[in-house]
Amino acid sequence: MTKDSNSPKSLDVIATREIRKLVMDLCRQNGGGHGGSAVGMAGIAVALWKHTMVFNPASPAWFARDRFVLSNGHAATLQYCMLHITGYKQFTMDQLRGYGHPKPRGYETVCFAHPEIEFDGVEFTTGPLGQGIAAAVGMAIAAKQLASTYNKPSFPVVQGNIFCSTGDGCLMEGVAIEAMAIAGRLALDNLILIYDNNDVTCDGPLDWIVTENTNAKVQAMGWHTIDVYDGDHNVSAMVDAINLAKSYTDGPTMINIRTTIGYNTEKAGTAGAHHGTFSDGDIIRVLDGATRPSHFVVPEVYEYFAEAGRRGAQAQADWEDLLQDYSSVYPKEAAELKSRIEGKPLDLSTIMKSVSVPENLIAAREVDGDIFNQIFKQIPHLFAGGADLWGANKLGAKDHVVFDKNDYSGRVVRYGIREHAMAGVSNGIAAYQPGAFIPITATFLMFYLYAAPAVRMGALNDLQVIHVATHDSFQEGQNGPTHQPVEVDSLFRAMPHMQYIRPSSGEEIIAAWMLALGAPKKSSLISVARDAAEFPPTGTCRDKALLGGYVLSEVENAQVTLISCGSALGYTQQAAAKLTNSGIPTRVVSMPSICVFEAQSESYKNGVLGSAARIVSVEEYVPTVWARFCSASIGMKTFGYSASGPSNYDRFGMDVEGIFSKITGYMNQDVGRWRIL
Amino acid sequence: MTKDSNSPKSLDVIATREIRKLVMDLCRQNGGGHGGSAVGMAGIAVALWKHTMVFNPASPAWFARDRFVLSNGHAATLQYCMLHITGYKQFTMDQLRGYGHPKPRGYETVCFAHPEIEFDGVEFTTGPLGQGIAAAVGMAIAAKQLASTYNKPSFPVVQGNIFCSTGDGCLMEGVAIEAMAIAGRLALDNLILIYDNNDVTCDGPLDWIVTENTNAKVQAMGWHTIDVYDGDHNVSAMVDAINLAKSYTDGPTMINIRTTIGYNTEKAGTAGAHHGTFSDGDIIRVLDGATRPSHFVVPEVYEYFAEAGRRGAQAQADWEDLLQDYSSVYPKEAAELKSRIEGKPLDLSTIMKSVSVPENLIAAREVDGDIFNQIFKQIPHLFAGGADLWGANKLGAKDHVVFDKNDYSGRVVRYGIREHAMAGVSNGIAAYQPGAFIPITATFLMFYLYAAPAVRMGALNDLQVIHVATHDSFQEGQNGPTHQPVEVDSLFRAMPHMQYIRPSSGEEIIAAWMLALGAPKKSSLISVARDAAEFPPTGTCRDKALLGGYVLSEVENAQVTLISCGSALGYTQQAAAKLTNSGIPTRVVSMPSICVFEAQSESYKNGVLGSAARIVSVEEYVPTVWARFCSASIGMKTFGYSASGPSNYDRFGMDVEGIFSKITGYMNQDVGRWRIL
Repeated sequence: MTKDSNSPKSLDVIATREIRKLVMDLCRQNGGGHGGSAVGMAGIAVALWKHTMVFNPASPAWFARDRFVLSNGHAATLQYCMLHITGYKQFTMDQLRGYGHPKPRGYETVCFAHPEIEFDGVEFTTGPLGQGIAAAVGMAIAAKQLASTYNKPSFPVVQGNIFCSTGDGCLMEGVAIEAMAIAGRLALDNLILIYDNNDVTCDGPLDWIVTENTNAKVQAMGWHTIDVYDGDHNVSAMVDAINLAKSYTDGPTMINIRTTIGYNTEKAGTAGAHHGTFSDGDIIRVLDGATRPSHFVVPEVYEYFAEAGRRGAQAQADWEDLLQDYSSVYPKEAAELKSRIEGKPLDLSTIMKSVSVPENLIAAREVDGDIFNQIFKQIPHLFAGGADLWGANKLGAKDHVVFDKNDYSGRVVRYGIREHAMAGVSNGIAAYQPGAFIPITATFLMFYLYAAPAVRMGALNDLQVIHVATHDSFQEGQNGPTHQPVEVDSLFRAMPHMQYIRPSSGEEIIAAWMLALGAPKKSSLISVARDAAEFPPTGTCRDKALLGGYVLSEVENAQVTLISCGSALGYTQQAAAKLTNSGIPTRVVSMPSICVFEAQSESYKNGVLGSAARIVSVEEYVPTVWARFCSASIGMKTFGYSASGPSNYDRFGMDVEGIFSKITGYMNQDVGRWRIL
Repeated sequence: MTKDSNSPKSLDVIATREIRKLVMDLCRQNGGGHGGSAVGMAGIAVALWKHTMVFNPASPAWFARDRFVLSNGHAATLQYCMLHITGYKQFTMDQLRGYGHPKPRGYETVCFAHPEIEFDGVEFTTGPLGQGIAAAVGMAIAAKQLASTYNKPSFPVVQGNIFCSTGDGCLMEGVAIEAMAIAGRLALDNLILIYDNNDVTCDGPLDWIVTENTNAKVQAMGWHTIDVYDGDHNVSAMVDAINLAKSYTDGPTMINIRTTIGYNTEKAGTAGAHHGTFSDGDIIRVLDGATRPSHFVVPEVYEYFAEAGRRGAQAQADWEDLLQDYSSVYPKEAAELKSRIEGKPLDLSTIMKSVSVPENLIAAREVDGDIFNQIFKQIPHLFAGGADLWGANKLGAKDHVVFDKNDYSGRVVRYGIREHAMAGVSNGIAAYQPGAFIPITATFLMFYLYAAPAVRMGALNDLQVIHVATHDSFQEGQNGPTHQPVEVDSLFRAMPHMQYIRPSSGEEIIAAWMLALGAPKKSSLISVARDAAEFPPTGTCRDKALLGGYVLSEVENAQVTLISCGSALGYTQQAAAKLTNSGIPTRVVSMPSICVFEAQSESYKNGVLGSAARIVSVEEYVPTVWARFCSASIGMKTFGYSASGPSNYDRFGMDVEGIFSKITGYMNQDVGRWRIL
């Protein structure tokens, strides 16, 4: 018990109670939900939305707002109730009734089980634990970079802190710990993590699975921690803690707030409160015996929070004045900043016209790195980083400025060996102000499997994040099966809102970047080989590659069409020539991107795929992704092998001789059902 | 500099030097490798293989040995050199010459770029960072559980510590931090982590990416830490530290050892030493000016380590005496333990005969949970755990004993919200003594994406790990797109050595468990729905399901074959009946496991797939995995939706009406190329 809890009923107390009650209404309206944490966090919500965060409900996307990410996304009811009570127009009480609703086709709501980015006031779609923390770290990086780039003395046009709430769950996830290590290393003092420490998880009490010293662990990573011991009642203590956190200038802060899950309800403090509905008795207890209609909030609470909204509106007006003055003094910077704030599309065609294939490089990753750097120079929106394989990915350049705590103006960041957080943080950079940044990540293709849940969140959030993978098959050679993906492409090629592109040449790499940069609502993965092709493909063309797939070598009366991409294409083209010469006319299709090809017209696709009875894909992966086009495939059934790249092509029957011999064998068989040759 | 480094050349000094030199020979023999860390860790190797670890090179799989996992797997040369020098017969000097070799087809070696589990003395295939630490935690759990189950007063028949080496890289990875949190929570005092703290990573100096207090972070998770400041020279300090760590009885220990990467070579202490070859001058410097032929180790060093091997042989002999005495006093326990040590196959047919479909349960996950528990009781090898969704996964039972620090005899462990480590730790449980344990993991299918890199390592290590996923599609309803996989199956269905099984009914769930339990060299993923099927399929059969796919409903003159599985099968069967009744004879195939079906005879497969011109799959996922069998598919192109399960089937056109209408539409179109209807 604290002083506050014994004091006369302040509006903070009333507001806390009303929020709890409304959360419970949402969980009762359709028979369930994740209300326990939201009930427990009601006081935190008052401290944030009433007393400390700067936002304008009438202008949700106002640039200089504070941003709030609900990393414990299952507590969505809290966010919905606060967006409603503070006056975000989209969040009417009627919309709130959609939470937990069966939602037959046609039914509309903005209140899904987890907050979704497409709605006002929701900065990021969350739910999978830990992802919100990583995104918040990314937003803090984005804010620092923009501030360092555009702010001038007396003109802090880039403002705003990043707030992120977390439960016990997020803090167990590797992605969160990785992201927090990055935030600590980069000393992101604009980041405040609100830890709803309620000592309970889904299965039971927290000490079933955590007994560690969380503060000490977080401090060791370069964070401040502040304790609040009565988050159920002591709003002013939380406000003090948040203001203290804002005052720190040398690192991020975690505020560790003890709360009671399902406070004052029958299951308070137990895992039973984590999800489910609430009883009539719970409502009465939470209201301290008072009664209130369902879906009703007392007017003084609306008014209490409306004041915060008015404060935000004033802050926005002040900021707009500041921006106007800034525009007079720094017209060029102002124009660029405004363009980025508004997410104006890039003039890609002009930019890409100047990009050329480097003449003196042959390794695919080096060609890709050179092309990346030609583009990187021209687009200030690009913000790139790698997971300690930046050198091996060949994306580095001498003139790069590193984003670090002593110079936040840099556009290249060292994420460390933290692939999952790299992608998760990049989501936040993209989400900070969509269009202002295009984040780029890099590692070996194999290690995008570590990053996959965050890559997925980027795609699901409709964010333009570009992932650059190298060492993308057994061509990489010596590292062996642990480093040679054979199935990772299957994941990314099936992922919605994701462009998977596997170019074979400099021309196709340029096309890959054009596709990735030209898709502002999609994530992309550009996958290139480690080494030079033993037989570089001839005739590849960026304009044709922009269609996803195209005819590379045509022959008359073709009996076979071979479809290939990436480092397999050169062998395929050589094998096709050999087959044609030996009396089996064989044409070749280059298909760097299946999903882009799928989006073309039927007649174009028919023309490319052709009319040969045998259509065979050739790629160094488990080839089921190709079965949609093919009568058979040449590919992998097993993991890779640690040996030289060329010996692997021989080993797995995918060098020129291997392809030739498999196809000649196939000519003697029925076409039959699709199979791996 | 320490006292030791100024003392007369002891055999430790000579041994350290010789190991460095042999590592460098391996990196020079084929023009490169990852030698820097191995050179830096040579002193550590002397402390481990000469002075502290118990092992018998003549009997590498001797049960009561200490186990060593090289989590920094790129330092493989160190392990190869030590296995050679200590006398593991497989690791001849000729085999060592294979490291880095191009390895044309037919060339054989046991020395790949990363250590591989199939060779003597290698406990786990490593390379992807962090995975080895997780596996070591699993081995420590396995040892504790077996010791608690079988050890008796005066009969410590289960013995041995788990040693694991790590560089800076593993310690940044989320999976490692998660696993270390588990180890700390469980107070695994049989686990010693050797941290090769060389302050350098692949891209540059460590402080580019890490400035945190690693010891404090690790201590906060319940670990002891011990510092050694001169790992380059001070072997005796490392021996003392290891012995101290062994003496702790209340938690795992990390020994933080400062070393110099590429010690004494030109690039010593820099990222340049991380990989690449070494010069003649480097060799001379490392030998303090002495010369030595390539691939030569002075005889006294072989003899020095042979003594350790003899010590191990004596320990094994003593242990065998102990086991014999134990067998007299505890014959039942001894027989069971021996059977598990030897990895004797289970008598599955007897066990499974007693397993029946529960009559009073209808939700798929509850049926699965009941069947799991019928099996769990009968097989002591099973060791299961969940990632805080154990309740939601419905695998719990009242009589489960929890594996915890106060009772290591339990067979159910709470991994916490650490999906990646759950799978990585389970790999170690399986690898500890293959056949002794069959670990089982559980979470929602979506969150197996968090676990995927470790799931892959289990499959790559040929380990029998059974993953149980629930909430496996948009049938789960309210949680929405963040929780509804549409592409995750594509990954696991393409993964080699992985049985992906998606049963539709109790009968098929029994078959799924039979398949998973009956594959001692494969991992399996059993995927079930959250809820009861709206229309439960009829006629499913465990014996037929064991073939992966089978005809569920046959009709004459079929125009359409529908293939389905899991929670989509019931709708599919209803739709087929409606199609047949409306004049489109439609047969139905249930295919719970594509990979198992693929392994059947061509004639069986042809019979199941039938001769209808239209074969259409129906599943709630992006359906490209089915294109191999199908002329078209009904499936997803987008992410899921937060609504009731039934409304989602309607929304995405996969309820009875949706399937019916898509197929009738398809009948009016050409069969054409495979497409999503």
